[in-house]
Parts: sequence; C-alpha cells; structure tokens
Amino acid sequence: MKNILTGMRVIEASAFVAAPLGGMTLAQLGADVIRIDAINGGLDYHRWPVTKHNVSLFWNGLNKSKRSIAINFRTPEGAELAKQLISAEGDNAGMLLTNFPARGWLDYEELKQHRPDLIQLTIQGDRHGNSAVDYTVNPSMGLPFLTGSEQSQDPTNHVLPAWDCITGQMAALGLLAAERHRRINKEGQHIKLALADAAMATMSHLGFIAEAQLGEQRPRYGNYLFGAFGRDFVTSDHHRIMVIGLTPKQWQSLCLATDSQQQMLDLATQLNLDFSQEGDRFIAREQIAECLEAYISAQTFNTIQSRFNQHGVCWSRYQSINELVANDPECSTNNPMFNNIEQANVGSYLAAGAPWDFSLFDRLPAQPAPTLGQHTDEILSEILRIDSSQIGKLHDKGIIAAS
Amino acid sequence: MKNILTGMRVIEASAFVAAPLGGMTLAQLGADVIRIDAINGGLDYHRWPVTKHNVSLFWNGLNKSKRSIAINFRTPEGAELAKQLISAEGDNAGMLLTNFPARGWLDYEELKQHRPDLIQLTIQGDRHGNSAVDYTVNPSMGLPFLTGSEQSQDPTNHVLPAWDCITGQMAALGLLAAERHRRINKEGQHIKLALADAAMATMSHLGFIAEAQLGEQRPRYGNYLFGAFGRDFVTSDHHRIMVIGLTPKQWQSLCLATDSQQQMLDLATQLNLDFSQEGDRFIAREQIAECLEAYISAQTFNTIQSRFNQHGVCWSRYQSINELVANDPECSTNNPMFNNIEQANVGSYLAAGAPWDFSLFDRLPAQPAPTLGQHTDEILSEILRIDSSQIGKLHDKGIIAAS
Repeated sequence: MKNILTGMRVIEASAFVAAPLGGMTLAQLGADVIRIDAINGGLDYHRWPVTKHNVSLFWNGLNKSKRSIAINFRTPEGAELAKQLISAEGDNAGMLLTNFPARGWLDYEELKQHRPDLIQLTIQGDRHGNSAVDYTVNPSMGLPFLTGSEQSQDPTNHVLPAWDCITGQMAALGLLAAERHRRINKEGQHIKLALADAAMATMSHLGFIAEAQLGEQRPRYGNYLFGAFGRDFVTSDHHRIMVIGLTPKQWQSLCLATDSQQQMLDLATQLNLDFSQEGDRFIAREQIAECLEAYISAQTFNTIQSRFNQHGVCWSRYQSINELVANDPECSTNNPMFNNIEQANVGSYLAAGAPWDFSLFDRLPAQPAPTLGQHTDEILSEILRIDSSQIGKLHDKGIIAAS
Repeated sequence: MKNILTGMRVIEASAFVAAPLGGMTLAQLGADVIRIDAINGGLDYHRWPVTKHNVSLFWNGLNKSKRSIAINFRTPEGAELAKQLISAEGDNAGMLLTNFPARGWLDYEELKQHRPDLIQLTIQGDRHGNSAVDYTVNPSMGLPFLTGSEQSQDPTNHVLPAWDCITGQMAALGLLAAERHRRINKEGQHIKLALADAAMATMSHLGFIAEAQLGEQRPRYGNYLFGAFGRDFVTSDHHRIMVIGLTPKQWQSLCLATDSQQQMLDLATQLNLDFSQEGDRFIAREQIAECLEAYISAQTFNTIQSRFNQHGVCWSRYQSINELVANDPECSTNNPMFNNIEQANVGSYLAAGAPWDFSLFDRLPAQPAPTLGQHTDEILSEILRIDSSQIGKLHDKGIIAAS
C-alpha cells in the first residue's frame, strides 16, 4: 500500500521521543525509515512503560512502521557502514534524522563529502548543543507554576512530554521543507533544531512571553480556562465533565442548556460586566461557576449529556486512560486510524497510524515496531549491495547483528 | 530575505491555535501566508492574554509574519472573492489551511472546480466533524488524572494547549507532504486532520494506550519522572531545581556530583535492586530522592550549579515565565531565534521566529502580525488583478475592509 511519502527514504539515528517520533511520523506516511541502533539497542530501548517481561511499550510505540538495522558503530567498520547507508544513492534517499551529537559518523561535513546533497536534521537539547530533555526544558518555561490548584505553591510537572512531541513533528516538517528545496534546487543542507528553542518559540507564539514582558504575572487558575469561561464540574452521580464557553455560540448554548440565561444576565448586571465579552466571563468565572455548579451537581450524567448535546454545548467527560481504551469507541478499531498489531515479544494490541486522512490515499495501517536488527541483512543487501558472504563476515566479526 | 519556503503561498481561514500556528509556521519559513478574516476579526480576535487596551497578545502571537485580508464572506460577493483567492493561479499557490467547516466557500469539491490541483487541509475537532477543542480533548485522554500531586484525587488540566500545538505542526507538515505529492504527480487533494485523532495517536505512540490495554493502570507520580529517576528538589537558599537520572551516564553524573555513589550502592543492595537499571531507579525513587534531598537541601544554588555543571548532570532550574523573560539570556535577542518587533497597538516586544536553523539560509526575523485587513488592497490587486476603482467599490459596498 502506498501513501503520500512512499518512495522517500530516511535514516534515523536516535533515542527517546522527539527524533523517533519525527521518523515514525514520516514512516506512517509511507516513507522507508531505517533506524540504526547499536547491537544491544539504544538508550531508550528499555524505557518505561514496559511489559512484565521488561519489553518497552515506549520503544515499540515510537518505532512502529520502521525498519531496523543493528550496527556496532563504535567500530570503524560499523561506522563506515552507517555512513554508507546515510549517503547511499537515490533521489529520494540521502536524508538523515538524528538527536545524537553531529560528530563522528554523524558529522554533516564529513557525510557531505560522500553525498553532497545530503539533508541532515539534528535535534539538539539547546542551540549550543548542550543536552536538555523535555523534563529539564519544561521547568524553565514557567508553565509548572501555572499548572494545578490555585492553593498550591509548588510547581506541577506535565506528564505529556509536550515539547518533545511538538519538536518531533517539527523535525519531520523540517526534513520535508528541506527535501522540497532539494527537489527544486538540487542542494542538501544541515538543519539544527533545538528542543529548548522549539519550546520558547511556542511560548512566544501563544502570547506567554509578550504577556510577561508587558508586565503581567499570570497566577495559577486551577482548571479554569484562561481568558473566557471553562471549568470542570461533577454531576450528581459523580461523573466529572469539562464545560467550555469560549465563543459566543458556546456560551449561549451553555446558558440555554443549563436554564441559566436570566441568572447570567442578572449576575452580569450586578457585577457591571457584559458576558458577551469573553474577558468579562473570565473575570466573573467564580460566580458563573457557582451558578453552573448548582445546576450540574443536581443532574445525572445522562441528563447532562442529553441536554448538552441537544443544545450543542462544547463539553467533554473526564476519563482515565483505561476508560479511554476500554470504553471510548473512538479509541478502537471503529476509528480507521487504529488497528491491532501483533508486536513481537508483547502480543496483540491497539496502535494508531498517522492521523492525517489524505483524500488520494487509503490510510496505512500501523505496522509493528521492528525487532532490533530485524532488517539488517536485507538493508545491507538491498541498499549497499553487500553480498551474503560479506554479510556473514560482518556478523562473525560482531559488526552487525540481526534478530 | 529568503527562507526555505519562499515562493509558496497558503491561504488560511482559521481561528484559535492549531490552524493559525500551522499557517504561521509556514510563514516564518518564508511562505506567503494570507489569513482571511471577517471584517471585524474572527472568533479569536480578542483571545486572552490581552493588553490593558484589550488587544490580543494571543492573536498577535499566532499571526506573526502573515498578510491579512478582511472580507465580509457572508455576502455572496465576498465569498466569491475568497474562493477566487483560494483558487488563484500559480504553481506554488493553491493551498488552503482551515479549521472552519469545509462547506460554503470552503467546500473542497466546489473549490476544486476552480482549481483542480488545490490542496486543502481541514482541521476538525473529531474525525466526524464535530467540534472539539484542546480543553475538551485533553480530559478524554486521561492525562489530567496523572498530573499533579500523588495525594490529589482531582484531575489537573494542562495549561499549555499541547494537542493544539502538536496539531498545528502536523497541519503544516500535511500541507508540505501534499505539496510534494502535487509537485511530483500534479494532483491536489483534501486532507482532514482531527484534533482528537492527533491526541490519540500521540497517546498510542508514547505507549500510554498499550500500557492501559495490557492491564496496567498508571497512578499519579507527582513530579517524579516515570520509569527512571527524576524529581524536583529545593536548595538551601530556596531555589527549585529538576534533576534527571534517565540514562546511565546521567545517573552516574548525579551520584558523583552529590557524593552519593556509596550511599546509592548500599541502598540498592539493601533493596535488592540494581540502580544501573532505570526501572530499578524508579522503583526506589522515594528512597533515592531522600538521599539526594539531604544533600541538595543543604547546599546553596550556586554550589549545586557549579558541582552539577562540573559533573555534567542533566538538570535545570525552575523559573517563572517572568523570570524566563527577565533573566534567561536564551530568551532574549542573544538567541538568534528572537528579535524585537514593533506590534501595532501594542508596542515593542520580544518575538520568536522559526526554531529551525537551515544551513543554507539566514534566519528570518519574526515579523509583527498584520492589522486586520492590512493587505486587503494589495492582495486583491496583486493576486486577483482587481483594479483600484473596483477595489474602491468593494470597500463602498462593505464587502472588504482595510486597516
């Protein structure tokens, strides 16, 4: 089956989230993405979550749909093989994605000698090349002090490695942009992308940096949506829901569905505010929430669900990840983005393919992650045209491994 | 100044985060991105944070480096102008990014009649086309129950609209992938991308879905890094730091820098664990943290900083957004990603350009966001070749506006 990037080949030398996610994004859109690993796996090979037998669900999740080659790249001969693979011929090849230091067999200037139109994207911790990870970048961005209960003094770390996920998509995007340039101008290049810069750029784009620079110090607002109305509530039968009144239409629907139009008008008059203005809804968020809470906490979830859907309220139900997986039809093979994969050493489970739905292509099903070195021999034979006796010798010398 | 996407033109009809961020990403890489807005601005035109004069720093942050055309697209004539703009000629044009319902003047099938090779990317709430926003998607993903203090029972919402930011990058990437396909195969297409699917795909890729499906229910772990060692600590002079021991090297550096090698060996022996295994470090995280806390809480920040840097520890300091902006040299014009912009109705402040550093291009400085309709006349003249007397009539009829 073909998809939008079928034919493109990318070599990936990576670990953890951003680079593997960037590579997998391209792989799930049809690219042939070859992850080069050390013979016993990289630094992320045992990253949690793991199965009872210590098989990493994290690694398998982030390397789906790729091919794997295992090379002892600490030997000169292994490093040479890796370099040959990166600089191998082909109009749609010659692309490298890495989050390792761009030196040794990953040195762009050196690789360029072998393939002048090489495109290399190197993800760095910071722009100086210092190491940094999502867990160290996030505390520097200030958001942990805005997360969690208004009563709390302590920072709250995020659980989603959001900066990594954003950077992973940016890495894939950077490669496509450079490949476009190469297609038009026949030149390759080296692209550097720092995790810390991706985070700071996002902070700038969302207005956080401007707000602080212009003299505001935003406090914590708990689970309130900032700048309009939104908060979580609990129904009489203990279901927690999130309710949003960001746009005028959402706000009107919410008032209608909770029979609170008159009450909200009175409240606004009393406070000398105008709730058609989103900012005024934010200013009065606690009083608004009090009115809504009186209503919502007296209704069952079913009543709320039916009334809210009837009026087109923007809302959702909180659910645990286990509930998402067990109960939500969107997180199942009902959703064409998902299919069950048979993952070696793990078993069968639900996996997502690419979320894009291109009208010219059927969706590619998610493919299992490879086992370490699963494609070592076929890659050396197919791409580097190494014959089987040579491949045998490389195995004997411990320079490559296959699973 | 040129950058990697100079020459490409994208029409954007959007509001809020994902679509404007996707468009701005392309704009900051050199594309000519034209945002079409209603004459009085879209739903996000007053989104907080705002200045004291109610000018949106959010809107200005997410629309930097674009051009703006203001059209009353509720009139047939206005809708017709918008359609002409979207389907205008040019090999590098014919691209549309929207998060509005793909109907009326945004109906792909209709637009395709005018430009058969049109590429349209439509961001949807869910794959059925129902509305959903980051604030309603996130509660469904289960992460709010994993965020915050281990003692808490209640969900903690994230403050960064992470799903929106991820989807924004995905939107830009989807457009580039489709443009590559068009360049090769001369065909356009419609791409749908649902926010809820982007979120669930990410949950799958990180292993959260597999973990739940295989029977684990992950509890909250507060500020601990999951699956290895990492946590926040406070120095004797009350600075909070994040400390990571994810890789073997990071763990060894941390033990060395805190003089705790022997203590950690003894602790591991006592617990019958092997701290060279990241999972064992996680199992013993509380005891490890106790040892480290005894050390760190007795040292000043300066001592910690000097020892940790000397030993190459992976760590960072928590800072508020205000501290980031006021004190961190990376968040200043020392960093070539940043420059000061003069934003109409706001003033001068620091803004980020694109975080990618392409070796063939100098970085494009961030450009201010346009005022609403700032480029209305020039766009109609330049792209649709409408003469100035016609443009005058469109103004008179209230079909377009300029600022």
